[in-house]
Amino acid sequence: MLDRQARIETTLQSALPAPEIAPARLHSAMRYAVLGAGKRVRPLLAYGAGELASAPIERVDYAAAAVELIHAYSLVHDDMPSMDNDILRRGRPTVHVEFDEATALLVGDSLQTLAFQLLSERTVADDAHRQLEMIELLARASGSRGMAGGQAIDLESTSQALTVPELEFMHIHKTGALIRASVALGARCGGALSDAQLHRLDHFSKFIGLAFQVIDDVLDAQSSSAMLGKTAGKDARNNKPTYVSALGVERARELAGELRDNALDALDTLPNAGGHLRELADFIILRKF
Amino acid sequence: MLDRQARIETTLQSALPAPEIAPARLHSAMRYAVLGAGKRVRPLLAYGAGELASAPIERVDYAAAAVELIHAYSLVHDDMPSMDNDILRRGRPTVHVEFDEATALLVGDSLQTLAFQLLSERTVADDAHRQLEMIELLARASGSRGMAGGQAIDLESTSQALTVPELEFMHIHKTGALIRASVALGARCGGALSDAQLHRLDHFSKFIGLAFQVIDDVLDAQSSSAMLGKTAGKDARNNKPTYVSALGVERARELAGELRDNALDALDTLPNAGGHLRELADFIILRKF
Repeated sequence: MLDRQARIETTLQSALPAPEIAPARLHSAMRYAVLGAGKRVRPLLAYGAGELASAPIERVDYAAAAVELIHAYSLVHDDMPSMDNDILRRGRPTVHVEFDEATALLVGDSLQTLAFQLLSERTVADDAHRQLEMIELLARASGSRGMAGGQAIDLESTSQALTVPELEFMHIHKTGALIRASVALGARCGGALSDAQLHRLDHFSKFIGLAFQVIDDVLDAQSSSAMLGKTAGKDARNNKPTYVSALGVERARELAGELRDNALDALDTLPNAGGHLRELADFIILRKF
Repeated sequence: MLDRQARIETTLQSALPAPEIAPARLHSAMRYAVLGAGKRVRPLLAYGAGELASAPIERVDYAAAAVELIHAYSLVHDDMPSMDNDILRRGRPTVHVEFDEATALLVGDSLQTLAFQLLSERTVADDAHRQLEMIELLARASGSRGMAGGQAIDLESTSQALTVPELEFMHIHKTGALIRASVALGARCGGALSDAQLHRLDHFSKFIGLAFQVIDDVLDAQSSSAMLGKTAGKDARNNKPTYVSALGVERARELAGELRDNALDALDTLPNAGGHLRELADFIILRKF
């Protein structure tokens, strides 16, 4: 896992414009937003899926970087005063605090663009048709009917008590869509998986995406800001509906375990019983931040 | 020109998610931001270039829509309080005024994503390789070294007196890059132009992009908000360096005319001496809003 975390850092480093290139302040802020922090869960999922598909790892580097750039853009915009108004992220001041709001807006915009630039300018698939499909897949996962739409639903549901199915609907969009895309893109960097296997892998990613969010809610309720590297206890303070508010901490933890078991079941018949994705499932469930 | 304006409206209408689809407020706001207003200069340039390249017009529809979605996203974000803080656009309240700031942020984000979705999911070129090149071209034109970077330079240069070459550098990025991309994408929807002809067409679009900006500055200084459909006199009030502040109105108008002449010269040896692009050059220079 460590070697892949090193690979994604190197890839992101070289994909982001150097801080000397004009406009220098924007490029410095883009690098600040992306580099040197973050668990890189989505890239790791892409690498795990790429391995199952016998993908050349250089291709997965770029697919993983594209997904992480989309994730980073969404964090920068979500932290802004008109959204979650947060000042701490990955253990450091958020981009609009460290720089300014206008710069944060442009950083998010430019990171999104860079994700699509990477996926179009680098070779990430066996042929150009497959590559176009991958770009479409990332766009659908991150747009108004995916991640950005999930954020809109989240904003609308503040101060409302949601049922567990309603919470699921929100998270399937807000975090689930991009996690699914990470696995799907990694798998499409290679050609070794059948459509049926890709389908099972998609099941894995749906379960693991929800498990990720349930644990996020538990950690927000139970950890300190110092542990998380972001503001803790924020959901309760902002009256956000969460799995903890809907189910209580104990039941939420149990649910995460059940989702993990379902995720692992989906991997059983895949090459090498899912390979590194099995470890990643535990990394996601057992993480402390 | 009217039939193409009708085509782009229809294409944008059907490309944007219906307002009933969840999240409904986000989708309504995206439609508000894009539909029913705007001169559609960039789509018209794409259609003009597509015609020269003998491109099937259905392909140009999608390329033109993608460029207009990028333009619309940039207007929504640029109007926000942390950027230009404007309340009037295309004769109506800006998105953050009509809806709210968080929604405006997500509208811009989602419109950008939709542009890349369109260019990947529809057939816009003779082959998939060419289509990937077109996606890369749009990404480079709109990211931190194109349009978004130009906006960053604009923010940094407020209250500074720029020289004409410095103004040019800013506008080549802020408005020029996307205007060039509009022409380049339209031309790549077909296969009829040689590399040398594409190069001449690119010259045309560089001149016309600068002419567009010079006229924008003149109109901002000389028109009423009612005429423009956006806040007039904003540049002077915000201490923004413009061609009018650098050259005065008369010389700025002359410069626009010279740029138009250069643009038309570049069209001379192209099929049909540039076809509709000649009219468009005058539409851009002689416009009153």
